[in-house]
Amino acid sequence: MKHFLSVQSCQPKDLVQQALQLKAQPWAYESLGKRKTLGLLFLNPSLRTRLSTQKAAAQLGLNTMVMNLSQDGWNLELGNGMVMDQGASEHVKEAAQVMGQYCDIVGIRCFPGLQDASEDYRDELIGQFIEYSGRPVISLESCTRHPLQSLADMMTIEECRGTNPKPKVVLSWAPHAKPLPQAVANSFVEWATAFDCDLTITHPKGYELAGEFSSLAPVCYNQDQAFENADFIYCKNWSSYTSYGKIIGNHRDWMITLDKMKRTNQAKFMHCLPIRRNLVAADDVLDSNQSVVIQQAHNRIFAAQAVLKNILETQQGVGS
Amino acid sequence: MKHFLSVQSCQPKDLVQQALQLKAQPWAYESLGKRKTLGLLFLNPSLRTRLSTQKAAAQLGLNTMVMNLSQDGWNLELGNGMVMDQGASEHVKEAAQVMGQYCDIVGIRCFPGLQDASEDYRDELIGQFIEYSGRPVISLESCTRHPLQSLADMMTIEECRGTNPKPKVVLSWAPHAKPLPQAVANSFVEWATAFDCDLTITHPKGYELAGEFSSLAPVCYNQDQAFENADFIYCKNWSSYTSYGKIIGNHRDWMITLDKMKRTNQAKFMHCLPIRRNLVAADDVLDSNQSVVIQQAHNRIFAAQAVLKNILETQQGVGS
Amino acid sequence: MKHFLSVQSCQPKDLVQQALQLKAQPWAYESLGKRKTLGLLFLNPSLRTRLSTQKAAAQLGLNTMVMNLSQDGWNLELGNGMVMDQGASEHVKEAAQVMGQYCDIVGIRCFPGLQDASEDYRDELIGQFIEYSGRPVISLESCTRHPLQSLADMMTIEECRGTNPKPKVVLSWAPHAKPLPQAVANSFVEWATAFDCDLTITHPKGYELAGEFSSLAPVCYNQDQAFENADFIYCKNWSSYTSYGKIIGNHRDWMITLDKMKRTNQAKFMHCLPIRRNLVAADDVLDSNQSVVIQQAHNRIFAAQAVLKNILETQQGVGS
Repeated sequence: MKHFLSVQSCQPKDLVQQALQLKAQPWAYESLGKRKTLGLLFLNPSLRTRLSTQKAAAQLGLNTMVMNLSQDGWNLELGNGMVMDQGASEHVKEAAQVMGQYCDIVGIRCFPGLQDASEDYRDELIGQFIEYSGRPVISLESCTRHPLQSLADMMTIEECRGTNPKPKVVLSWAPHAKPLPQAVANSFVEWATAFDCDLTITHPKGYELAGEFSSLAPVCYNQDQAFENADFIYCKNWSSYTSYGKIIGNHRDWMITLDKMKRTNQAKFMHCLPIRRNLVAADDVLDSNQSVVIQQAHNRIFAAQAVLKNILETQQGVGS
Repeated sequence: MKHFLSVQSCQPKDLVQQALQLKAQPWAYESLGKRKTLGLLFLNPSLRTRLSTQKAAAQLGLNTMVMNLSQDGWNLELGNGMVMDQGASEHVKEAAQVMGQYCDIVGIRCFPGLQDASEDYRDELIGQFIEYSGRPVISLESCTRHPLQSLADMMTIEECRGTNPKPKVVLSWAPHAKPLPQAVANSFVEWATAFDCDLTITHPKGYELAGEFSSLAPVCYNQDQAFENADFIYCKNWSSYTSYGKIIGNHRDWMITLDKMKRTNQAKFMHCLPIRRNLVAADDVLDSNQSVVIQQAHNRIFAAQAVLKNILETQQGVGS
Repeated sequence: MKHFLSVQSCQPKDLVQQALQLKAQPWAYESLGKRKTLGLLFLNPSLRTRLSTQKAAAQLGLNTMVMNLSQDGWNLELGNGMVMDQGASEHVKEAAQVMGQYCDIVGIRCFPGLQDASEDYRDELIGQFIEYSGRPVISLESCTRHPLQSLADMMTIEECRGTNPKPKVVLSWAPHAKPLPQAVANSFVEWATAFDCDLTITHPKGYELAGEFSSLAPVCYNQDQAFENADFIYCKNWSSYTSYGKIIGNHRDWMITLDKMKRTNQAKFMHCLPIRRNLVAADDVLDSNQSVVIQQAHNRIFAAQAVLKNILETQQGVGS
């Protein structure tokens, strides 16, 4: 593996198996990262991604350096040919090249601005880090995808599906107080499709994902109907793509409740966290034993570790 | 030791002896924490607690991950059943469970809001981390207590008391520019009482500590009189408990001066730091050789190390 | 080496050679810092300094603790005898003594206020850390100098000069959007002078450096003329010293362009980064193969490592 940006970056089923093996034996490769440095660049807040990736790196013997760019540093300019006499103190070209000098692997988190769809969906920052850093780049969530989350999600489905060859998985929109990125939903659709899931997407009209993602699975505008016989409910809010970055309508009745969960085949309840209780999902759903959200969060460690392990092995000419 | 929250969490005299031994041989257990992770969660600023705990962890071979929740992350909701459509992005239930997945030991710092005494004195955040993380929890200062500070304070008294079986110790209120928590003072009273000190509390009327603490030692409203023959002056500002969270009156004359120190039995001057010079205590007190404030700060390393060592030993079935 | 504050702290030519050797063999001393702690205190933002110093420390086996004082902590008071009833929560006397208890080596970054030249040029913060911490202190950029940058700059000149015994080096002022410190320019003049460079300073009238620096090299107010036959162009903005901390005039025409570079002897283009493209220097200069700015940034690792190595060796009685 060179970079880790999406399901296309890897052989996803093989990677899930490796992650599950690391969960069983987290210290089996504790010298693999010796004398190597992982740089983590956060342009946006993070709890799970930050801590799980640090933990994964420690279990591989990697040295980790964390940089909170907006707090400890400054804003980056992305545009070509810009006269930089405004807010940004540094161009991504220099920042990426310098990170490449200091780190063997670079992880980056950046959120979309949610103002301009075409700008966000170009995912320029991460693209420029790939172009200019000269190092393997790991997406810690980009404007359009959150592949480490999806990898942990697939681990969790794998752990819970038993012998079910084609579980019914429902990605359900849920309400929120703020306009959120589509990244987790986009990414989940890509990965669930690659894992032989019978995937349905349900959301109010107007919340259709971008075509490259919505085209991968049928959409059902009736949440109750979508939940029938589901084995997994993956719940997530996202803002509108067509009315880009907007919240359209109220839709508080799309909150996941225990009543709705009763329509399912005792489905597991999934969410990437953080989750706003009693807005996105009711307390009794989150506190039920159908919820596997903590298991998902736990799996983030081994998802990150599998990715780091593959990149390190590729650097050493061992892997693929 | 399971958790470390107050003097009741431990056998305090034994713990002080262990801390003093670690001060003599800081690297004697440098592999004890191998492959274990300490997570430090700061909801409020910290210099000494942050650095001394990191140093202590390094001396035990622990991997440390620091999370500044308000900066790097987001606000936490504590209330049960709340519809989370306001500022908080995550409920403590999930945050604590996730920290428990990522860390073997969790340390937390949070300050009281100083608006509502009964809310602050429930110390809910730390209580919920104990309930939901499933891990040993260390208070890095809670709304009501600062036990790592008190442990370092008792080490310092132990180092300075010589053969004095019952030193006279005075906890003296001093003025400040901002309303501060009562945590350090509360905690000191609990610990000094457990250490055979002849403890007196002195403060202006209206600054009585909460009953569970003020009942442990006599209060003297006359600072000059309280200082007579004291062996240790422990100085600290706190805001009113009865007029909760308020500064009542000016009381600039309660600043500790060298003249006041002359009434004592060449007492050692103690303060937890940070200290505002010439407001809380005069320059010549802090710069005199009666001041042991730097020794106290130094002892913070070994206080944290003794606590971490005990928790690690308990996890490994060695300790108690 | 005891402290590292300026070119006077070291034997600069010897130090550059050591840094170049560390670049060739970065892990040759990986146990030198075992059980030692480096504390890095940032009062101002940093990317390169932070990451390169952390990396250097890791390559020497040092434990590093980073403290962002303005974010994670609080403001420091510098004045003697001040009644601290305003913004600052702690005096530098205590902060420095405590850092000295927790760390074996202390690195500090602070920027000048750019309001009062005599205050800034006393460089009090770093001076008080030397006085009160009792530890070796490394400047991570002070109000007046940036010696780690200059050391990396000299490594870069050494790598690029070939057999040229006395390269012509031009320090050229360039425009910027905000008033910046003079520290990088001051420091560069000191170091280039010590390295047998034929140094010329060029800037618009009014941007003369403080006398102790400007007296070290001739000033030419005509940028075009200064560039003739130069082997190195070191570009940097700084605010006025005589009209202290001010931007005087527009001077956008002082931006470094490829046309101007054509006057030189195919000079290498140097800048400390971060750089504002198309304001300080044009894209085509930065993207040309005359630019060595990334090489400079890379050398920051080994500059920091050479300084840390010398200090550690001095502490162990091996070095000088």
